[in-house]
Amino acid sequence: MIKIIQLLADLYDCKADLNDVDLLENVLEEAASEVNAKIVRRITHRFSPVGVTVMLILAETHLSIHSWPEYGYAAADIFICGEGKDPLKALIELSEYIEPWAMEINEVTRTVGKARK
Amino acid sequence: MIKIIQLLADLYDCKADLNDVDLLENVLEEAASEVNAKIVRRITHRFSPVGVTVMLILAETHLSIHSWPEYGYAAADIFICGEGKDPLKALIELSEYIEPWAMEINEVTRTVGKARK
Repeated sequence: MIKIIQLLADLYDCKADLNDVDLLENVLEEAASEVNAKIVRRITHRFSPVGVTVMLILAETHLSIHSWPEYGYAAADIFICGEGKDPLKALIELSEYIEPWAMEINEVTRTVGKARK
Repeated sequence: MIKIIQLLADLYDCKADLNDVDLLENVLEEAASEVNAKIVRRITHRFSPVGVTVMLILAETHLSIHSWPEYGYAAADIFICGEGKDPLKALIELSEYIEPWAMEINEVTRTVGKARK
């Protein structure tokens, strides 16, 4: 059985330009790098008139960010398995780029394994 | 302010072949279709020796599934914004394909908007 702590963060009143695709791609890459996670695929989508989604598939699960620039808001999901990989480190790295005025973090434990019959 | 209910489901002892990329892509597409969500991008990765990740960017945020076939386990994330879109409907549709023996669902409320100063 493997326990994974997944972090779901709501980032409010962000200073960063949340409509900047390159910035948000870079933010997730830096967050992955911070915990030595390996990026295997990435997708990005820019919505009209505003809003960006970036998702990275990692060898260790995934990272995603969705932005609503009209609110200065972004939703970040940090889902990283692997011994010694601290999702909070990745989230702190991400927030240093995004510069939210406030952040709400939900922590969920995922248990990979067989059913507990 | 927009409230979004995000569901994180752990699916245990699944009957479906969790190493079947086509099946898992189809499962997420059907789940999106169940709630009339619009798929804008998709990525899939097959891990060696086993394991599959599929992620869909939706106009309404995202769906993802990661499988650990060696445990018969899959982790599904249902993150769908939009008036009247019930994430549980998407999850039920998904689970009808995956056929888990047991399921644990974590529900998280994301609040899109400005900081509550």
